[in-house]
Amino acid sequence: MAAPAPLSPLAPKFYAELPPIDGVRLAAGAAGIRYQGRTDVVLAVFDKPAAVAGVFTTSRCPSAPVDWCRDNLEGGTARALVVNSGNANAFTGKVGREATELTAKLAAKAVGADESEIFLASTGVIGEPLDARKFEGVLERLAADARADAWIDAARAIMTTDTFPKVATAKAMIDGVEVTINGIAKGAGMIAPDMATMLAYVFTDAAISSEALQKLLSRGVKDSFNSLTVDSDTSTSDTLMLFATGAAEARGQRKVKKARDEDLEDFAEKLDALLVDLAQQVARDGEGARHFIEVQVTGADSDKAAKRIAFSIANSPLVKTAVAGEDANWGRVVMAVGKAGEKADRDRLSIWFNGIRVAHNGLRDPDYDEAAVTTEMKKDTIVIRADLDIGDGAATVWTCDLTKEYVAINGDYRS
Amino acid sequence: MAAPAPLSPLAPKFYAELPPIDGVRLAAGAAGIRYQGRTDVVLAVFDKPAAVAGVFTTSRCPSAPVDWCRDNLEGGTARALVVNSGNANAFTGKVGREATELTAKLAAKAVGADESEIFLASTGVIGEPLDARKFEGVLERLAADARADAWIDAARAIMTTDTFPKVATAKAMIDGVEVTINGIAKGAGMIAPDMATMLAYVFTDAAISSEALQKLLSRGVKDSFNSLTVDSDTSTSDTLMLFATGAAEARGQRKVKKARDEDLEDFAEKLDALLVDLAQQVARDGEGARHFIEVQVTGADSDKAAKRIAFSIANSPLVKTAVAGEDANWGRVVMAVGKAGEKADRDRLSIWFNGIRVAHNGLRDPDYDEAAVTTEMKKDTIVIRADLDIGDGAATVWTCDLTKEYVAINGDYRS
Repeated sequence: MAAPAPLSPLAPKFYAELPPIDGVRLAAGAAGIRYQGRTDVVLAVFDKPAAVAGVFTTSRCPSAPVDWCRDNLEGGTARALVVNSGNANAFTGKVGREATELTAKLAAKAVGADESEIFLASTGVIGEPLDARKFEGVLERLAADARADAWIDAARAIMTTDTFPKVATAKAMIDGVEVTINGIAKGAGMIAPDMATMLAYVFTDAAISSEALQKLLSRGVKDSFNSLTVDSDTSTSDTLMLFATGAAEARGQRKVKKARDEDLEDFAEKLDALLVDLAQQVARDGEGARHFIEVQVTGADSDKAAKRIAFSIANSPLVKTAVAGEDANWGRVVMAVGKAGEKADRDRLSIWFNGIRVAHNGLRDPDYDEAAVTTEMKKDTIVIRADLDIGDGAATVWTCDLTKEYVAINGDYRS
Repeated sequence: MAAPAPLSPLAPKFYAELPPIDGVRLAAGAAGIRYQGRTDVVLAVFDKPAAVAGVFTTSRCPSAPVDWCRDNLEGGTARALVVNSGNANAFTGKVGREATELTAKLAAKAVGADESEIFLASTGVIGEPLDARKFEGVLERLAADARADAWIDAARAIMTTDTFPKVATAKAMIDGVEVTINGIAKGAGMIAPDMATMLAYVFTDAAISSEALQKLLSRGVKDSFNSLTVDSDTSTSDTLMLFATGAAEARGQRKVKKARDEDLEDFAEKLDALLVDLAQQVARDGEGARHFIEVQVTGADSDKAAKRIAFSIANSPLVKTAVAGEDANWGRVVMAVGKAGEKADRDRLSIWFNGIRVAHNGLRDPDYDEAAVTTEMKKDTIVIRADLDIGDGAATVWTCDLTKEYVAINGDYRS
């Protein structure tokens, strides 16, 4: 196994401190799935059934835990969440399904719940059978040890090729009562040698029905995790879940049943911002990343067209290597706009790097200051904006640059 | 400007020697567009009007020469072709259109033809104005110097980041008369620092109408150049053209007017094979390539689905870095199948590397010999086969691995 990569130069200077959330307790432990000398399994316990919502990978070859969660989501309530790192339990056939069943059985026993209220995720190597017997004893101990303040421990235990734990927190008002939202995430490449995947879990003490939660989450994912790409590769295991314990009801919050309820306005706003924060942290920890890239597309034929063009730019190896080389190579941005397949008029296109317009109306901008652009390209964050000047469609997506380190991390050179 | 990259380890051991083709003469010269000490412009002269067909980039932001060729193709005949390297004349607005007009005017004068019978291409940097005045005098000299045996010179003059010239030749029988087909191509990355693009020109002395030629070419491109990817980035300038001088008519070949004419069967077959040969050479010269990759998808829902899945595998940075690392990482192939968005059943999927089955029916193949696979992965050519076992759809595409050298070539590191 390769040595852990050094901390991303784009890592946050400090990690947010996540406050307790009534009704959730967490613990991280070591089950020895693959890694030695580190934690690799997290148990989140909901003392009372929590409302739950989830969004999963669009892969046609999803992992066994993704199938499991999709099935259990119909019940609408959760009593525990188990996440392990080191093995993705993906492409493991019948053995994989049996491993999810055993894990759920062990977790259900540990927390005194039904298996249909247990949610699972696995991240790590694909195609290796996951030996769920290793969770035996471990999950019971974690259930006993679970604490309200173990957020950073949980965020660390689910890391694979991540170089830093990803956490975020927010407060929101519902019906005059303050509620808390905490989130943890992991992800670095979509799939990686000791493998990666995108997992994110958000918890709140708000009292919201699972139907309303699902709508909020499905809406919020669009401009956050679904506006994110590291290497255009989609994991078999991507999972985003939202749990609401409802503990705020005891503090006087009326339980909200409909997503369109006006009382959810502030909560939805804070949730969306927290999802964006977590998604951006994943891009900042992209394998080998040295620059965080925000791609803004404006003036496209529609929002959908804008997003497709933005992803065409964000996924282009040539745009990403140019940013790695700190080269404001707008010709490659033109290329990426052109190949997106959406309506574009090359003679109306304008392009900016960090606010400096380098191309305008189909030509190099005669006024731009090369030295100023060179200085901007050395910064951690590069904002590439492309305006098509043909409509009102707009979209923003995030990614990172493509460096030799990405190839080294994923190439596992044997020579 | 970066030093030229060393010869690709996948370069052919020798170059095919291209015989003369009656009715075509070529010459290469130095116009000093960007490169010093090398040729950078090619003129092909057709002594009598040749039938012509073309297929161009799907980019919505095509270069000025692409627009020019599309317009002139309607006339159906060619008297000359001018290709320059060093500057793509793309995203150059009105100035770019003027440059194509001037180039065509100079070429028309040099060969004594009408501008509507001149075809053009430019490959190199995007967004820099092309100073077509540099062709003044040069094209006239080339017209005077043009010879029947300058094929390799022509193939060299159109190179950008290519490390070797790409040539191919074939003989075919039409109506009992032997005809010759010669092709030259260039391409390494879709766009690159001293920039690349895919250009290919095929010439024959066969007597075939331009309508029939166009049908043959549009059909042949599907399983050759449109089954090729280096980095998923589509150039603004990609051009494939086919010229038929008709000189074989003097040797008794009846001119063929319809693509479905049975007399074209052998020609079409040889043409298709030559296009595949040239396309594979482009993949072998992919920027930084150390392995040539053939992706075969079988058992898909349809041929279209198979091709989409094959490109999903061939464009996956994680699959490509795994091959660079000589790692038979079939988990990443599963991932790429899953993300393609086409019908797939993970529990029916099987995967082979160079004929060794590593995964079967949704599981690691219990019988595969790790040592044998390791030996295979060191070879120059890696054939990845994925069988979906749900239908009859099949497709084959070619690419190369993704190495640190690709990032270095395109990153133009300034640090």
